Amino acid sequence: MSRYALGLDYGTNSVRALIVDIATGEEVATHVSNYLSGQDGILLDARDPDLARQNPQDYIDGFYDCVLGALGKSQVSPEDIVGIGVDTTGSTPLPVDEHCVALGCKPEFRDNLAAQAWLWKDHTSFAEAKEITDKARENGEPYLAKCGGTYSSEWFFSKILHCERVAPEVFAAAHSWIECADFIPAFLTGQTDPSRTARGSCAAGHKAMHNPAWGGLPSKEFLAKLSPGMAALHDRLYTDVCPSDQVAGYLTEEVAAKSGLKSGTPVAVGAFDAHMGAVGSGIKPGTLVKIMGTSTCDIMVAPYDRELPDVPGLCGIAHDTVLPGMYGLEAGQSAVGDLFNWFVRRLCPPEYAGLDAHEKLSAAAAELKPGESGLVALDWNNGNRTILVDPQLTGLLVGQTLHTTAPEVYRALIESTAFGALRIIERFEEYGIRVEEIVNCGGIAEKSPLTMQIYADICNRPMKISRSAQTCALGAAIFGAVAGGAFPDVPSAVAKMTGVKDTIYTPIPAHRAAYDELYAIYKELHDAFGLGVKIDLGSIMKRLRAIRAANS
Amino acid sequence: MSRYALGLDYGTNSVRALIVDIATGEEVATHVSNYLSGQDGILLDARDPDLARQNPQDYIDGFYDCVLGALGKSQVSPEDIVGIGVDTTGSTPLPVDEHCVALGCKPEFRDNLAAQAWLWKDHTSFAEAKEITDKARENGEPYLAKCGGTYSSEWFFSKILHCERVAPEVFAAAHSWIECADFIPAFLTGQTDPSRTARGSCAAGHKAMHNPAWGGLPSKEFLAKLSPGMAALHDRLYTDVCPSDQVAGYLTEEVAAKSGLKSGTPVAVGAFDAHMGAVGSGIKPGTLVKIMGTSTCDIMVAPYDRELPDVPGLCGIAHDTVLPGMYGLEAGQSAVGDLFNWFVRRLCPPEYAGLDAHEKLSAAAAELKPGESGLVALDWNNGNRTILVDPQLTGLLVGQTLHTTAPEVYRALIESTAFGALRIIERFEEYGIRVEEIVNCGGIAEKSPLTMQIYADICNRPMKISRSAQTCALGAAIFGAVAGGAFPDVPSAVAKMTGVKDTIYTPIPAHRAAYDELYAIYKELHDAFGLGVKIDLGSIMKRLRAIRAANS
Repeated sequence: MSRYALGLDYGTNSVRALIVDIATGEEVATHVSNYLSGQDGILLDARDPDLARQNPQDYIDGFYDCVLGALGKSQVSPEDIVGIGVDTTGSTPLPVDEHCVALGCKPEFRDNLAAQAWLWKDHTSFAEAKEITDKARENGEPYLAKCGGTYSSEWFFSKILHCERVAPEVFAAAHSWIECADFIPAFLTGQTDPSRTARGSCAAGHKAMHNPAWGGLPSKEFLAKLSPGMAALHDRLYTDVCPSDQVAGYLTEEVAAKSGLKSGTPVAVGAFDAHMGAVGSGIKPGTLVKIMGTSTCDIMVAPYDRELPDVPGLCGIAHDTVLPGMYGLEAGQSAVGDLFNWFVRRLCPPEYAGLDAHEKLSAAAAELKPGESGLVALDWNNGNRTILVDPQLTGLLVGQTLHTTAPEVYRALIESTAFGALRIIERFEEYGIRVEEIVNCGGIAEKSPLTMQIYADICNRPMKISRSAQTCALGAAIFGAVAGGAFPDVPSAVAKMTGVKDTIYTPIPAHRAAYDELYAIYKELHDAFGLGVKIDLGSIMKRLRAIRAANS
Repeated sequence: MSRYALGLDYGTNSVRALIVDIATGEEVATHVSNYLSGQDGILLDARDPDLARQNPQDYIDGFYDCVLGALGKSQVSPEDIVGIGVDTTGSTPLPVDEHCVALGCKPEFRDNLAAQAWLWKDHTSFAEAKEITDKARENGEPYLAKCGGTYSSEWFFSKILHCERVAPEVFAAAHSWIECADFIPAFLTGQTDPSRTARGSCAAGHKAMHNPAWGGLPSKEFLAKLSPGMAALHDRLYTDVCPSDQVAGYLTEEVAAKSGLKSGTPVAVGAFDAHMGAVGSGIKPGTLVKIMGTSTCDIMVAPYDRELPDVPGLCGIAHDTVLPGMYGLEAGQSAVGDLFNWFVRRLCPPEYAGLDAHEKLSAAAAELKPGESGLVALDWNNGNRTILVDPQLTGLLVGQTLHTTAPEVYRALIESTAFGALRIIERFEEYGIRVEEIVNCGGIAEKSPLTMQIYADICNRPMKISRSAQTCALGAAIFGAVAGGAFPDVPSAVAKMTGVKDTIYTPIPAHRAAYDELYAIYKELHDAFGLGVKIDLGSIMKRLRAIRAANS
């Protein structure tokens, strides 16, 4: 008599369906469907490396494929699925017509890149992001205070404004714009009126400057300063938002018939992958959940019982975005796994190269003591998201000698991301948000004990690992279960359906001294290159040599 | 009726004999003999990477082997060899007994590393170098003014003092210490009294603080501040020195019989390889000769018609050390070819790896425009010799993105050495020593057109290449010819026996703007990390992105 929830996790390259036993959190079946368009599911433009789009038809095709796959692998009856939750990447907005049909699915726009979904990592809108930031500052608008003081090229309004500039025909044809996280529930539930689509508080609060303090989205007057078209669009966007414990609607007959699910199954309001991943990792006040993949997303929550200060550099403090009834706080690092992958792809010598390059480099790097490499890196090859909010920053490596080896550089890159993680933790705590527990999830947390041990040592905190290997999909399933009425609230579901692994990485006391010294150097470089603070850097190379000598 | 000179070039791993037609500079035969001891001729200590020694017996065995080899390949009669010149690495001092026998060749010391020759790149004496520098400064001694303000761990007195500290039995058994450049002529000419050995002005002036201004070597009183043993040694060293156009002595019967040479052949006073290489490259006032190998040595000369200022950071201004009757000025970079080799050995991905890695990386790097990589490096993986005189500095690379490739890093490393070269040129000119012509020689000048073009572009000066591929041995032969009486002076021999190649690398005007901007960034990093100047570095990463965008 078990009951189940279905989580759908729309990632960058594929969509996953996960069927979970709601009484235990047991993951009974999962299936992943790769997107079929572009390169690994991403539409690219050889002339512009900043461009990254997705074909919305891939979202629809992928839904059917992964759900049929997961159902086929399980003994679960569709009758026993109490609800469906959806998470997606974001901010990934797409233009829709007045019937909520994605323009990218319509024949006249099928080959127009601007009519597709603008994937989170599309950076073509950097000029518009700066314009929005500048205009908000000039006008003394409060909007930026909750997103770290800088609006990003990855976010909703930057992308729409850029579309208006470069593809006015798409902008004109768009009745409205909708986040992928809201588009999927609308599609599943047959919502054909964009103005009646449930809009999730997560995407709205973190990426579209939505806040109850100013009554919703930024004002029409503000958007008018960007363009008349943006002002006009304001009326066709939305005012109210919902957290993901709410029902967006019910599965249509047509979708049910094609997917093998039961029509009328409740579908929860959508949210972003990292936020639902935090829920799948058991988030609660005091717990930092780190979703560690190609980039890293750091999520915390804080109850409404006190007013939170604005936290400089934190890319989001918003309402109800993780757990309903609490602030959701989002930070992150722009490249973590991507940084390690870059090294393996570009600078890995033959003796470590191959499909198991990470394993070979990790094994050699694990033989090194902290400080033994004499290296420190800045983890900014893809810019710095938190706390500097500056995508234009780049990497730095210092301390190389003629003996420096590939595993030493690899370890220095891992350490650099841990230093960046610690800087974020410190920023939370500088503003009174205590980090009492850290739970890690995602590919790196699963696969790299070396990275986890280095994080424990450098952050001087135990590193726990989420029990589930697919916390985003699990989080989506939790919201499906709650929206479906199986639990009175999200924490009740979290208590039943999540947990951490037995293996906990604890700080090694002997590693502390070297890492304290290295972190001091990291911070000097961070402030010198990231903030332009004038610091005497003349001792850095000699201190690195001394640390190396003391630890060799 | 041709006449010839024999040049002997004692390098780090091997010794070369070169027979040259003195009327034309034609190189009629050459033979290289690898040293047989240690690793590639270097005695190492696995416990101490700073240690590098050589077996003096290798010098003797190598002499016979390479001379027999060269004579065997030529039709030259020993009768027609007018003189022999010798260059060696340095400072490479070795302890000798009272009969001028190298302690390392004596049975009781054969296995004692301290009794061998202390190769130029032995850095075990860093503490003693600092002690000598500190004591000279404290006592207001003038000695350091001519060697850039800092005494080096690579030099004569540092090594001897370190020997006294770590191997007192060797120090006690040493009647005197002698540079390899003086030991070889002493051996060839049968000089068995260390006090009567010809001591070359080159090694003495550049490495042993010898200067006519204070009557020779540093005073006995100064050495007494280092140790009583050093003070006592002062009396068993030397006072007078000779330039290399002078005869050190005449080949002995025994050496002649074993080598196939003619007894009584004049042997010139020895000097260092780079200094004789500068002569083999045609040095004259206004000409900078760059000997470009694993490290780079930069040599200039200046007439005595004006007093030269002390030049901060220049590791040597000394008398008669290159051309007799002129100041010899020595600068250098601690790693050039070594830096490129480090990258190939440690960080070169499989698609570029292999025996032709440099060629493959160069071909790909040559496709890049200046600035296109968005990278700047500091060329300090082996410290900075000129102008910072700081062996403790290390490398730095900034500007990496997730797209940065191996050829981009490789090119940035080449560029970094060119920036370092330009900083040295500027330092010469800041002190009134005009650089009117640059002649390059050595392996990199011969083999890397990409490097030479980048040097031309960055230094904004034509780069000429010495006609000879073995300028050090050619320079030694020139001194052999002059000492043998075939020419009235060195410039007369230089005029006949040297030249440059037809290919001259000239600056490409389109490359100037990017390199001016990159050099400005290099100098900011140089001053920030090398001198501790507090500079606002907050714009560097963004300027690199802008340069990249403007040049892609």
